[in-house]
Amino acid sequence: MTPTIERDRIRVEARLETLLAATTDAQRAVEEAMAYSALAGGKRLRAALALAFCRLACGRDAHALDFACAIEMVHAYSLIHDDLPCMDDDDLRRGKPSCHIQFGEATALLAGDGLLTYAFETMLGAATQPEVGWTRAGEAALCLARAIGVEGMIGGQVVDLDFETHPPKDAASLYRMVAMKTGALIRASCRIGCILGDAGPALTERADIYADKIGLAFQIIDDILDVIGDEQTLGKPIGSDRESGKTTFAALYGLDRARQIALSLTEEAKAALQEIPGSEELLLLADRLIARTW
Amino acid sequence: MTPTIERDRIRVEARLETLLAATTDAQRAVEEAMAYSALAGGKRLRAALALAFCRLACGRDAHALDFACAIEMVHAYSLIHDDLPCMDDDDLRRGKPSCHIQFGEATALLAGDGLLTYAFETMLGAATQPEVGWTRAGEAALCLARAIGVEGMIGGQVVDLDFETHPPKDAASLYRMVAMKTGALIRASCRIGCILGDAGPALTERADIYADKIGLAFQIIDDILDVIGDEQTLGKPIGSDRESGKTTFAALYGLDRARQIALSLTEEAKAALQEIPGSEELLLLADRLIARTW
Repeated sequence: MTPTIERDRIRVEARLETLLAATTDAQRAVEEAMAYSALAGGKRLRAALALAFCRLACGRDAHALDFACAIEMVHAYSLIHDDLPCMDDDDLRRGKPSCHIQFGEATALLAGDGLLTYAFETMLGAATQPEVGWTRAGEAALCLARAIGVEGMIGGQVVDLDFETHPPKDAASLYRMVAMKTGALIRASCRIGCILGDAGPALTERADIYADKIGLAFQIIDDILDVIGDEQTLGKPIGSDRESGKTTFAALYGLDRARQIALSLTEEAKAALQEIPGSEELLLLADRLIARTW
Repeated sequence: MTPTIERDRIRVEARLETLLAATTDAQRAVEEAMAYSALAGGKRLRAALALAFCRLACGRDAHALDFACAIEMVHAYSLIHDDLPCMDDDDLRRGKPSCHIQFGEATALLAGDGLLTYAFETMLGAATQPEVGWTRAGEAALCLARAIGVEGMIGGQVVDLDFETHPPKDAASLYRMVAMKTGALIRASCRIGCILGDAGPALTERADIYADKIGLAFQIIDDILDVIGDEQTLGKPIGSDRESGKTTFAALYGLDRARQIALSLTEEAKAALQEIPGSEELLLLADRLIARTW
């Protein structure tokens, strides 16, 4: 782990703990469930991307911290709802019982709703920070809303559900679903860093390319790990994709070709930022992401 | 029905239809479910409040329309998730099959998530309107986020769920739950109208009082109608509160006393706005709300 990535993870974890500290008696059940899922660890990839792009654009990142946390809240909400019995029906998440196993379905549903809502509250509440202001806070929140709506993450989930009965006919359909289901939030993370760092259009365009490439590479590696990974390390059952008959990149291309594609995508992602001073940590992040050494 | 209320309802309905028009093929399932629930009719009370307070504050309301629609999207999302089997398990809503009966649980879950997300997208997307701007859009969106989070609507749902196993010990607990579960969104609707109309603190304070009183009166009447109402008119099964063993105002006070309290609250709500020029439609709205003649 590089010091920067690790330092970011620790900062995000600490801030999330503060933001998600239980404050009331009556609603404690849902607050506990929200904290349980949002503080369950994980790489904090999306938060790291937001912070790193903010640093790359303006040299500072303290004012991006709450946005990085909001993005992680959204990620946690999507996992809670995804694990529910009516969706993927997963009992295990990051090596622990899923939220609905631990707290019951009703509380898990509301915890997901609560995290999504709190993400927007957190971003817009940060507008009063002098380095943020209403315009940037609003632009960042709008960017996130667009990324996780019907044209983005939720849309990807719908298409993914539909694949269970209507498997994708071609690679393009699979690429499109992945770009929405996991890619859109990764792209928004990078973009939000750009917005808060006041990046110009040139850097933002490169951030988009970088995000799209690593997002896709990330999913391909995920598919590969579902086949060859170690349940202990992954914290979730392996082989679940095959069992549920899902079409994945691994199934589509075979393991070797899929790995090759992920490697090329990573190189393309790095090339997009190569010449930008200060981008070293993002180049390293792309490498570590595909190697899953972090 | 007064012309203003009816005109507002028609404007909101038309704008919601535009905002929720299906745009894609792949995600059509969830877009249809979102539109099904958000366009299922209803009084559009919350939208009417936002528009009326904006008019009261600044004499115009066109720039508040998208915010009024966003509030109705949030209301629809809360009903969809509330009706799910793991929550109230209601098959009927506004006289039609609930969202999950019509589209299945997974799609209903995502449709709720989609409406909540789209509400924020709609509000923040309105920032580019000259009469709105990022500050007002952000303040309104933050106001809504706070009202529907763990300290507000979601918190109220958690407490209400908890009441099923731990009935409220006193009237204060019931009042508190209702203030969160239904009151907070009604208060936010009035407040958002004030924000968009640039109301000063004096008017906003009166709006808060009005909102809290009519919100409570509204819930008391709801409880009464659950006992004596007509299933056809209500569009949902009557007696469901008693069946599920819920503590309601009707059960707590008896029907006559509950109706008396609702009437007093309505008078107090009207008194808060009585002297403000242009408040006639809001006084009328309070009366019609309790009489449920609209």
